Amino acid sequence: MGRKPTADEPLLLTPGPLTTTASVKRAMLKDWGSWDEPFRDLNADLRRRLVDISGGGDDYTAVPLQGSGTFVVEAMLGTFIPRGGKVLMLANGAYGERAIKVCERMGRETVAYRTAEDEAPSAEKVAEFLQDETIDYVFMVHCETTSGIRNPVEAVAAVVAEKGRRLLVDAMSAYGALQLDAKVVQYDAIAASANKCLESVPGMGFVICNKSVLAEREGNAHSVSLDLFDQWSYMEKTRQWRFTPPTHVIAAFHQAMLEYEAEGGAPARGARYEVNCERLVNGMRALGFRTFLDDANQAPIIVCFHAPEDPNYDFADFYGRLAKRGYVIYPGKLTAVETFRVGCIGSMGPSDVEGVVATVAEVLAEMGVADGRSHAA
Amino acid sequence: MGRKPTADEPLLLTPGPLTTTASVKRAMLKDWGSWDEPFRDLNADLRRRLVDISGGGDDYTAVPLQGSGTFVVEAMLGTFIPRGGKVLMLANGAYGERAIKVCERMGRETVAYRTAEDEAPSAEKVAEFLQDETIDYVFMVHCETTSGIRNPVEAVAAVVAEKGRRLLVDAMSAYGALQLDAKVVQYDAIAASANKCLESVPGMGFVICNKSVLAEREGNAHSVSLDLFDQWSYMEKTRQWRFTPPTHVIAAFHQAMLEYEAEGGAPARGARYEVNCERLVNGMRALGFRTFLDDANQAPIIVCFHAPEDPNYDFADFYGRLAKRGYVIYPGKLTAVETFRVGCIGSMGPSDVEGVVATVAEVLAEMGVADGRSHAA
Ligand SMILES: Cc1ncc(COP(=O)(O)O)c(C=O)c1O
Ligand SMILES: Cc1ncc(COP(=O)(O)O)c(C=O)c1O
Repeated sequence: MGRKPTADEPLLLTPGPLTTTASVKRAMLKDWGSWDEPFRDLNADLRRRLVDISGGGDDYTAVPLQGSGTFVVEAMLGTFIPRGGKVLMLANGAYGERAIKVCERMGRETVAYRTAEDEAPSAEKVAEFLQDETIDYVFMVHCETTSGIRNPVEAVAAVVAEKGRRLLVDAMSAYGALQLDAKVVQYDAIAASANKCLESVPGMGFVICNKSVLAEREGNAHSVSLDLFDQWSYMEKTRQWRFTPPTHVIAAFHQAMLEYEAEGGAPARGARYEVNCERLVNGMRALGFRTFLDDANQAPIIVCFHAPEDPNYDFADFYGRLAKRGYVIYPGKLTAVETFRVGCIGSMGPSDVEGVVATVAEVLAEMGVADGRSHAA
Repeated sequence: MGRKPTADEPLLLTPGPLTTTASVKRAMLKDWGSWDEPFRDLNADLRRRLVDISGGGDDYTAVPLQGSGTFVVEAMLGTFIPRGGKVLMLANGAYGERAIKVCERMGRETVAYRTAEDEAPSAEKVAEFLQDETIDYVFMVHCETTSGIRNPVEAVAAVVAEKGRRLLVDAMSAYGALQLDAKVVQYDAIAASANKCLESVPGMGFVICNKSVLAEREGNAHSVSLDLFDQWSYMEKTRQWRFTPPTHVIAAFHQAMLEYEAEGGAPARGARYEVNCERLVNGMRALGFRTFLDDANQAPIIVCFHAPEDPNYDFADFYGRLAKRGYVIYPGKLTAVETFRVGCIGSMGPSDVEGVVATVAEVLAEMGVADGRSHAA
């Protein structure tokens, strides 16, 4: 951290792929035999560590899966929601919408509870939806990366439990920093990624889930590849993956978990991101930029800024000039407003964030953009 | 190649993960921004090279997908076989059987044409099956890695084309060495892996397919994550992956493709594997071992040997002693006979294979196994 980024070795201010440590990448320099005992041990150790950080203890298990985060979310939805089941989907951004599309494609009935992209869903409203007795599952996104909003999983989980329904969470971009203790927040399953707050490389994710519920889901998934029951039962029996595992990616993730624990786990990592986020928001506000979200809704994962109103501003140009200096930001993903996003996660600290802000100032000046001011909402 | 393997840096005599070069692994030492122009270029260049080696020219396209090989096979089957379609599945081993299970799970009707694990399917018999006019697709495995058998794709493809039906091939373990020229062998799609004969790391594969057929498959797949139409149309528009790409794995694959071309492509790689296979078979036969397949059916990818009949032989012990010396072999996967398998693919040459054979001899002596002789078939 605090190194000088370059165009060729940039700092990735993105919500994955993100900046990983050199030691995490170096863990990929070995070819592991997937059937070999040391690899099975590595795998078992990784799964144990993932269950440990969930707080769920013996009632929970970790099921890793290769592919991107969407694969893991789809695997969770397909494995857990019974065929013929009905699921209430909370959506306030692209990842909630994608999960709805996933359910529709595999033929699970959905009811959508949509809120605006800058508005968190309300637990009371969820309770109203649950008057429909045919809804058995509720799905929500913890940090909706589209805007960076933190959705109130704790409050919704309490309502879902009270009503005797089951909860599935896409915690992709929050897991490892904004922790949900499985002993407190009742969920059937949470989908997460190696490549966000746990700071490993992309290529795999995992689900943390209730073992006894999973054990009842044999044959339920719509897909062989995305069947978490099969993946889990095979792993339990053999300590191997069902199909060829992404060995290098797994070794990197194991190393990333060691570094995560050495840093102090979720409290320490969450605190580092909080500082990153605060410095970023303060620094950008000093340049005139306006955040899309109210501070109360902002998760310390990724910050969405309104594009400057100055006619000299152009996103592609802004992005390119920052990238040339080694700072890779992320485009906006909102439906209506022009924005851009800057991530607070990955192997970086406050001095890196100060580098971002200083470089944004430099680039604005170069582009002839007076400041980051945008039209008032 | 020709280096001395150790327990910690073994030679993987397995059909993936396999031994890759140091330079392929070193390509993973960089964090790429997935939205960044250099990464888009890398991706476009990789796809172009994959189409080039298919021989298909402008009528074909390469669609990469993250996950293991099974994910890619499932994506191909789900995207191409129409809902309500019927597919003739040729099976003589575990991968053919798995593809049948995949189709059943996603609700595509199948008819199975099974042959024994050491018997190739016949094109005449396929013609008989195709008297059923409701069959629109035929699926087969090129090299069935279960036994190492080479199935006659060319002959079957000719029958399928003559009967006006469509062909899908799982060429996972053969692609890059046993090439099928798309101009000669008519197929809708072939599923292949970065991590077999193209000698990269596991974590992604790809489909080579007919563009005009793919263009008609919008909304057909059973899964969002495994929808090759969506993956393709998004890539064509943006030069990006739909979902977070496994950037490090992709960079390794690109490097592996450069090394593949530098070696001389399929002719050179196929020839190296032929030599590996011949030395292996001859060497093992000299120790008394018997191959499961007739030489005429043997693909130069992986060789399946009968387990020795000597009572002192035990697979786990044999495997462990070889692994301790840096040679990782593969267990058998046959349903009825006890076997083990030794791969001929990966970054290795004849001197490595001689090292395998010499070490097998050493280990047999240590175990008190007189020789590799097994009961006659
Ligand atoms: C909340 C959330 N869900 C799902 C995903 C999907 O992940 P992927 O792009 O890896 O498929 C992401 C990725 O950024 C995410 O942030
Ligand atoms: C012929 C064939 N098909 C499919 C697969 C499945 O690949 P994976 O284990 O990567 O899912 C393999 C893997 O060895 C294979 O050899």
